[in-house]
Formats: sequence, C-alpha cells, structure tokens
Amino acid sequence: MSDTPKSHGRLSISASLQPRDLMGETPRLKGAWTARVITLFPETFPGVLDASLTGKALQQGLWALETIDLRPFGIGKHKNVDDTPSGGGAGMVLRPDVMAKALDQAAIGTKGKSWPVIYLSPRGTPFTQAKAKAWSEADGITMICGRFEGVDERVLEEYAIEEVSLGDFVLTGGEIAAQALIDATVRLIPRVLGNQASTEDESFQHGLLEHPQYTKPSQWRDRDTPEVLLSGHHGNIAKWQRQMAERLTKERRPDLWRAYCELHDRDPDEDQEL
Amino acid sequence: MSDTPKSHGRLSISASLQPRDLMGETPRLKGAWTARVITLFPETFPGVLDASLTGKALQQGLWALETIDLRPFGIGKHKNVDDTPSGGGAGMVLRPDVMAKALDQAAIGTKGKSWPVIYLSPRGTPFTQAKAKAWSEADGITMICGRFEGVDERVLEEYAIEEVSLGDFVLTGGEIAAQALIDATVRLIPRVLGNQASTEDESFQHGLLEHPQYTKPSQWRDRDTPEVLLSGHHGNIAKWQRQMAERLTKERRPDLWRAYCELHDRDPDEDQEL
Repeated sequence: MSDTPKSHGRLSISASLQPRDLMGETPRLKGAWTARVITLFPETFPGVLDASLTGKALQQGLWALETIDLRPFGIGKHKNVDDTPSGGGAGMVLRPDVMAKALDQAAIGTKGKSWPVIYLSPRGTPFTQAKAKAWSEADGITMICGRFEGVDERVLEEYAIEEVSLGDFVLTGGEIAAQALIDATVRLIPRVLGNQASTEDESFQHGLLEHPQYTKPSQWRDRDTPEVLLSGHHGNIAKWQRQMAERLTKERRPDLWRAYCELHDRDPDEDQEL
Repeated sequence: MSDTPKSHGRLSISASLQPRDLMGETPRLKGAWTARVITLFPETFPGVLDASLTGKALQQGLWALETIDLRPFGIGKHKNVDDTPSGGGAGMVLRPDVMAKALDQAAIGTKGKSWPVIYLSPRGTPFTQAKAKAWSEADGITMICGRFEGVDERVLEEYAIEEVSLGDFVLTGGEIAAQALIDATVRLIPRVLGNQASTEDESFQHGLLEHPQYTKPSQWRDRDTPEVLLSGHHGNIAKWQRQMAERLTKERRPDLWRAYCELHDRDPDEDQEL
C-alpha cells in the first residue's frame, strides 16, 4: 500500500507496510512519542529534524516520525487532491473527501490515546512554548500540512481539527511549520537533549526572554565580558542575569513584560535597578 | 577554501570556489535575491525550500541560496566554535571571534546593497508578514543560525545584528527558523509563485485572518458549501468572505482585531451582521 505511513529513524527498515504498523506492533521503542505528518511532500521529512540532537534521538527511537503521503488518496487517474475555490478566486483548495481518507489513516491506533490533530495554518491560534510542553506530554500528534489556498473548511469541522499558526506570516506550505512544531516539542521529551543543553533556564520558561550570553575570550576587540560574570559570585550572577532578562523583555516585548508583571504583582513602569 | 559559501540551485555547479563567487561574477541570474546562511549544519539546506514552488524558483535562478559552514572558522585542531557560558550554567555559547570570521565572509559583496543581517533567536522581535515583504525588496539577507545556548552578545552588538524571532517557543537550532523566514520572503519575490497562488488575498494582507475556503464536492457527508459561494454573485461573495474574515479574526485573534478596528475606525465590540 503506497498510502501507508513511511517511518523515519532507526527502526524504519523493519516497519511493516500494513496499517497495523501504526498500532504499536512495530519494534520501535515502546510508547515513543510519534509525529504523523500528512503532506504532499513526504520527501521533505525528516529534513532538518534529522540533524543534531533531534536526529540522534530519532535514530535512537526516543521519538518516531511517520509521513502520510496525501497524493495516493487523490481522485481519478491523476490522483487530484485539490480543486478550485467555491465562489471563485486564485489558487486551489484541498478537497475534504481526499483529506478525510488521509485523516482516517492517521487515526489508526490513536483511539483512547492523547493525540492532538493539528492543521498548520496562519489562521490558527499562535504556537507557544506552553503548547510544545503540552504536546510533548501527549502520546503523539498528527499534523496536516496545507499547500495552495488551504484545506476545505468542512473537513476541519468534521474532524474537530485544531488550527495552529507558526506566526503572523504566510508560508508556501505547512512542511516547514510542521518541522518547527515537531522540533520545539521533541526537544522537551526526556533524554532528547541529553545534558548538552538545558530547558530549565531558557526563553519563555519564566515568561521572560533569556539574558545575554557570553563566553571566551573574555576580552574581544574592545568589548569585555561583564565583570560580574567573571566574579564567581553565584548570587550576584543570578541577580544580574534576572535583571538583564527583565530589561530585555521590557524593551523588546512589552506584551510579555505586561503579562509577567501581572503574574508577579509588579508595576510594569517601575524603574529598574540597573 | 572549505569556508566558501556553497551555492544551491541551477547554477551551483559552475560556482567558483573563490570569495569573488560572492561578488556577482558567477553566472547566477543577475541581481537575484540571495539568502546567505551561517550554520553548523549546511547539509540541512535547501531542505524544504527545494520542494514545490520555492524549489522550482531556486532551480530557475529567481533566487539564490548560499550556506556558510561555521565549522572551518573554528579554533584549533578540533575547530571549536563554542565554549562554556561566562558565569556558569548549562550548554555552550558560540564564540564571538569565530562568528565574526563567518560574518566577514558573508559580508563580501554586500557593501552599498540593501542586505539585512539577522540572528534567529527567541529573544528577537517577532517575524511578521510586513518584515517578509520588506526583506523581499532587499538585495539579499544573511542569517545566523544559532545552536546550543546562543551566540556571544558582543558579536551581535559589534555587527549591529538584528535579532528576529519566529515565535514564542524554543527550537534546537536556527535552521528551521531560517527556512521559514526564507520561504515567507522568497514567495513574495515576483514570478516565484507564478499564477498558481495569490498573495493578494491572504492572511495578514489586510490585517485579517483569511476567510474559510471550500471546494468540490459542494455536498460532502452532511455538510454543504455555503449557498452564497455557489450563487455566482461576486458582490455577495466578497461581502460574505469579508464578514467571515472579520468574525474569525475577532474570535481567534483579539489582538489583530483591535489593531484592525483602530485602523478602520471601527468599534471592536460592535455586533456583526452575520
């Protein structure tokens, strides 16, 4: 069956070509978080996700990636997946009947599991770190990558699909957005980052942008590393970093700053100590 | 020189390995918009950008993509590009001296041109459709992809680099963000989308989310396409689409809705006609 999800990663070679492949009977690490991606361009996966730490974790089976090619579900000899927009206008719209078949395929084995189904669209609610955290605690996720003018509204309603946006801009298709959402989510799965990085002290973790970072050489051109960072005084360093994070957030992201102040019962217009 | 940008697309085979490669003497289409990407993972490019319309346009030379591998600029036998954060903490920070060498390489041939230099970071100002439009009208763009805990602050200051964020979430590295920003920008370059899609009537173009889309079949399961879209009455169709766009924006993105109402002197709490 050409419309069976294609697996990526260490265990893909032994993946069965039957739908039961999706039901947890494959030798992939038991219970591994799984991303299923419905796309017209399955060859663009795993893409960047195959590099660095996410790629290593994929090879180790710490998470799994399956692509579902939309094309074989298309209609007629030419396997058409789209048609002109009702009411006229430019572009093409993905057909509801075709997408429904791919969604039925993607749903196999997810019953009773925590498994959000997402359509990546600039019309959706914005993706955030909180959403990445929630998704990383699910059993897996299915993502629809749109192309052209989007997906017929009725299939989104029928399947109660959550529309999520990467940001206030328009992409040629959902594939890059899917990779971004998967990357942000997968790195929060235990053991994926190893001890090479920390998710404890990064942007948005405390509702603030992260403080500036410095490394060697401590003197570079006419620019020195701030003295406090070389002092070895952990209390002062932590205080300085917190102050810098607050100042940066206030300057660059008044929206985040107001939310942070509200949460911590602070006056957003207070003068800072620095 | 292994640290010379690698070209992607139709003309990459004939690319010179000398820095003058960057000075417009290569046979690439004259004046083509160019993305230069500084990355530790040059193999992840063009990635998704090689598919579909952006890929076709890349092959046609309508835009160009060059990667600058950061690794060869590293220090010592092991070509180290990073070191521990000053002041302690987890992770590694990219060194300012190493990044400066890559930035000097990326700057060749850009003098006097409109050529933003961007660092992709969750600490940056949010990327928007307006920024994509502005960048598409530049001669090109240089993007730094971070990894680990980020880049030393001093090199960002020294080179007056603009920090831009894809959204309020954290990625393993900047490569996916770079592909998103390049995709959003490149599709606004004339002739890239051809007549297969329109950028006139899409989300954010008028400060609103796009209206829902429908296509064939007009009856699917128990869901019909809204009658007005099948009426052939262009005035009514346009009015309905505008109303739906407004309603959707009001429901899902109160922030955009308030800005839209302010611009059009409307009351954001007014009852809608639908």
